[in-house]
Amino acid sequence: MKWTQSYIPTLKETPAEAELKSHQLMLRAGLMRKLSSGIYTLLPLGFRVLKKVIRIVEEEMDRAGAQELLLPVLSPSELWQATGRWSVYGQEMMRLEDRHKRLFALGPTHEEIITDLVRHEIRSYRQLPQNLYQIQVKFRDEVRPRFGIMRAREFVMKDGYSFAADEKSAEEIYGEMYEAYDRIFSRCGFRFRIVEADTGAIGGSFSHEFMVEADSGEEMMVVCGQCDYAANLSRATSADDIPGKDEKPAVLQKVSTPDKRTVEEVTGFLKEKPGKLVKTLLFKTEGRMVAFLIRGDDELNETKASNVLNGGKLEMAGPAEIESATGAPVGFTGPVGLKNVEIIADKKVQCMKNMVAGANEKDAHLKNVNFPRDFKIDRVADIRQVREGEPCPKCKKPLNIKHGIEVGHVFKLGTKYSRSMNAVFLDANGHEKQMVMGCYGIGVSRIIAAAIEQSHDENGIIWHKNIAPFLVHILSVNAGEKDVVSASEELYRKLDSAGVEVLMDDRDETAGVKFKDADLIGLPKRVTIGSKSLKEGKVEIKDRATGNVEKMSMSEAVDCLKAFQSE
Amino acid sequence: MKWTQSYIPTLKETPAEAELKSHQLMLRAGLMRKLSSGIYTLLPLGFRVLKKVIRIVEEEMDRAGAQELLLPVLSPSELWQATGRWSVYGQEMMRLEDRHKRLFALGPTHEEIITDLVRHEIRSYRQLPQNLYQIQVKFRDEVRPRFGIMRAREFVMKDGYSFAADEKSAEEIYGEMYEAYDRIFSRCGFRFRIVEADTGAIGGSFSHEFMVEADSGEEMMVVCGQCDYAANLSRATSADDIPGKDEKPAVLQKVSTPDKRTVEEVTGFLKEKPGKLVKTLLFKTEGRMVAFLIRGDDELNETKASNVLNGGKLEMAGPAEIESATGAPVGFTGPVGLKNVEIIADKKVQCMKNMVAGANEKDAHLKNVNFPRDFKIDRVADIRQVREGEPCPKCKKPLNIKHGIEVGHVFKLGTKYSRSMNAVFLDANGHEKQMVMGCYGIGVSRIIAAAIEQSHDENGIIWHKNIAPFLVHILSVNAGEKDVVSASEELYRKLDSAGVEVLMDDRDETAGVKFKDADLIGLPKRVTIGSKSLKEGKVEIKDRATGNVEKMSMSEAVDCLKAFQSE
Repeated sequence: MKWTQSYIPTLKETPAEAELKSHQLMLRAGLMRKLSSGIYTLLPLGFRVLKKVIRIVEEEMDRAGAQELLLPVLSPSELWQATGRWSVYGQEMMRLEDRHKRLFALGPTHEEIITDLVRHEIRSYRQLPQNLYQIQVKFRDEVRPRFGIMRAREFVMKDGYSFAADEKSAEEIYGEMYEAYDRIFSRCGFRFRIVEADTGAIGGSFSHEFMVEADSGEEMMVVCGQCDYAANLSRATSADDIPGKDEKPAVLQKVSTPDKRTVEEVTGFLKEKPGKLVKTLLFKTEGRMVAFLIRGDDELNETKASNVLNGGKLEMAGPAEIESATGAPVGFTGPVGLKNVEIIADKKVQCMKNMVAGANEKDAHLKNVNFPRDFKIDRVADIRQVREGEPCPKCKKPLNIKHGIEVGHVFKLGTKYSRSMNAVFLDANGHEKQMVMGCYGIGVSRIIAAAIEQSHDENGIIWHKNIAPFLVHILSVNAGEKDVVSASEELYRKLDSAGVEVLMDDRDETAGVKFKDADLIGLPKRVTIGSKSLKEGKVEIKDRATGNVEKMSMSEAVDCLKAFQSE
Repeated sequence: MKWTQSYIPTLKETPAEAELKSHQLMLRAGLMRKLSSGIYTLLPLGFRVLKKVIRIVEEEMDRAGAQELLLPVLSPSELWQATGRWSVYGQEMMRLEDRHKRLFALGPTHEEIITDLVRHEIRSYRQLPQNLYQIQVKFRDEVRPRFGIMRAREFVMKDGYSFAADEKSAEEIYGEMYEAYDRIFSRCGFRFRIVEADTGAIGGSFSHEFMVEADSGEEMMVVCGQCDYAANLSRATSADDIPGKDEKPAVLQKVSTPDKRTVEEVTGFLKEKPGKLVKTLLFKTEGRMVAFLIRGDDELNETKASNVLNGGKLEMAGPAEIESATGAPVGFTGPVGLKNVEIIADKKVQCMKNMVAGANEKDAHLKNVNFPRDFKIDRVADIRQVREGEPCPKCKKPLNIKHGIEVGHVFKLGTKYSRSMNAVFLDANGHEKQMVMGCYGIGVSRIIAAAIEQSHDENGIIWHKNIAPFLVHILSVNAGEKDVVSASEELYRKLDSAGVEVLMDDRDETAGVKFKDADLIGLPKRVTIGSKSLKEGKVEIKDRATGNVEKMSMSEAVDCLKAFQSE
């Protein structure tokens, strides 16, 4: 492709709207433009990257035996009502009314739609398993769209769904998808981690997220520096020790703690360590009150807490609600004597001895609180958040907390949707059974942004060969000179006819502008053709990633770049 | 692909909902399923065809120098309001409100969106021309969705837009697109005609439709049996003679025609030929009344009539309105003495002599009406519909009227959108000019249905090789026998590893079911492997289109099918 026949509107200035490096570079390098908040056009250069990503995804999905189809964007409200998601999705789901006043959703995901399809066709275990996927534009009306296509309202997603006759078969497909994802993200050139993810209210025992490591990532993951342990924050555990677990229970004692409300204030005043205190956090959920107990030096992970309540929405109780539930103002809540409130304790709380806790009385705390002597626990669960440096649950080495960009998610759904939508089949004995499902997502357009986020420098993008819009950038320095023009044209023609993806900057611009744009666009190999080196019969090839420069003859350059393409 | 590992739900019965053959076959052959009225899922087999069509379209568009991008589905109402199409589109355009109460359209087409993109980037004639396209799902809330994906509410379209500095450049791109479309539809295996199309209210002198010949087609085209003349009904003309044009004007005469209202009644009663009468058709348009004059034996083409009024909406006047405008009831309207009504006459009316016309008086007509002696004409235009058998305007041989399916449309838009959206650039002299635009559409998903409509028999689909979901269908007759199974597997493996697209029916079904399904799905070559012919060391290859059967050895079969694939 020649630049003058392309549509590559690069920008000299960084647009003010863009915070994230990938967002800035996608605008500056002419990969995309904003049409409206969270809604973007992919320009030809950006679209070429998208197509390369799509091809990688398709090849690996097909290799894993999945079959591609295309579901509609519009889906009738009835299907969403069957699973309850018409209301659960709330404002995030975009909806419209057709000319006959029928309500439709613009698919944010397609579990309902594909389950509806399959339940009408599959009757027998002989027709199972099925593994179907599509690559499609999806819609989510994000509260705060941001970071360009990283968190957009319209985006391209690969969503796949599997249907199996039993758990074993479902797990086999899960494994195949896991492997396929591993290959896909490796081929995209990512440094990524596969983390155990929260299965949440959906149940089922498997879920993994594929996280591209990037400091700017919105997601947090807990990874071991030593072994392969990796999990997201709402799933991670540690082998943290429980100090003081061997203490003997002492006599319960009420102490005056005037105006001491926070963990620091109370434990400082009582000269205890924060880990001695048990925090009692009151939340409202579906019209009732629950209390989460957690050690004073730990933090509650709200996703873990919500999962205990099957994904119920949690809202922190307000001062009036706390006073009415406990009889005391904020800061003095404790589990002892707490009535009409479900008490859910973190695993670590069970083992604590001689705790400090609020007395449910203004300006008072209790010392030497002990379970089960002094209070009841309705449920015990892992609800704390793992901290940097805690010991790995597998190998006891220190854990790190890192930022990441989620690009893929595999999920064993179980029978959640087949149950509510009655997707059943007859097994070998003629018994009706629910299909066991899995779902598998990839943020296809997000991959473009994630790739740039992970691979750029101060001058621009550094594309991995497998997803670069072109592989070779021909740049002529003295474009006014006949020799330079004809050498450039010749190289372009030779590479193009050899099937090497090449972009030639044939614009009437200064060398400075061209060099800047070449670095900005970031194709893997840049060939510079100038009159000086041409007199020695040489051209210059620069590797964008390493910065290495090699001089060679024209025919060597052609061979070298052909070899690079087919490597 | 093996059938048991695929998702190909064929149907034995023809679904009642489907009228059109292509619609029936797409359902029966497991190419698609309906989700809601006019909204379909493309199943894996249908999706494979779609991908092949997309690849052909992309290859030919790219070869013609166009560049692919991806515009959003959602577009803000403001852009549509700028061109007035927010209201013009009416209920056909699907719309939604986001969480911030902003209105968006689901793109039925993208002139506004791409013009908005280009006007912000293109400043100079040096950056022109640009030819950009996308392949995308589109939305149109059809009043009466029908014929499956032929007229759906959600469908895949290729829409391209070109921007040029002047008419000449715009026409060059138009020509390139015309040629590219010719190649695209040839490669899809269509018998098609390129017809001159109506440019309508948009203006500009070029528009062509690419019509697949099919008796079931919704569109009508006028084609010459002799020369290459072809036009759609709202554009077609003929070299029809004007009988009686040499008559001398006779004296105007009022005659009593009690209760004679229709052309047949009046001319029968007066013993004149229908071609002697001039019909006066009253229509309302934008709050006023217009009269169209047309010869008694001609029909008005409403699109042509509307084009005279720059695409204004036409509504036939009711009895009360006719009486109030003419003073007479329906059936006695004529041009003589007609006041406060614009009179638009067909070209042929001008030359008529001694016409019969309504007298604007109950039970009376006029004889020997002559223009311009007896009435005025405000505008003369071609508003009649060409009839089967009329002489071709180019070669005078008889014209045929045929049904067709529109699969493509190229359009020279001129400055309609660049004017209303201020898409301007500076020319070589620094003067601001409006870009000259063209637009180019292809009904990508419709191509699948059109191909089936044009190529099927009573047993099923007959795919053209270039768009067939697979090329080869392996069918084992005695699937219980070891030799047959191993021969089938061997052939499958050899073809698959040679890159031949092959589907093997490995189901545990009777030969009858398998043969029926093979014909239904309609892959170009079927290989039958049975124990009897296998004993002679032979397999059987049947051509789906011709029905020709050849017996050959396994290795000959492999060579033959490899050659077929690479032909």
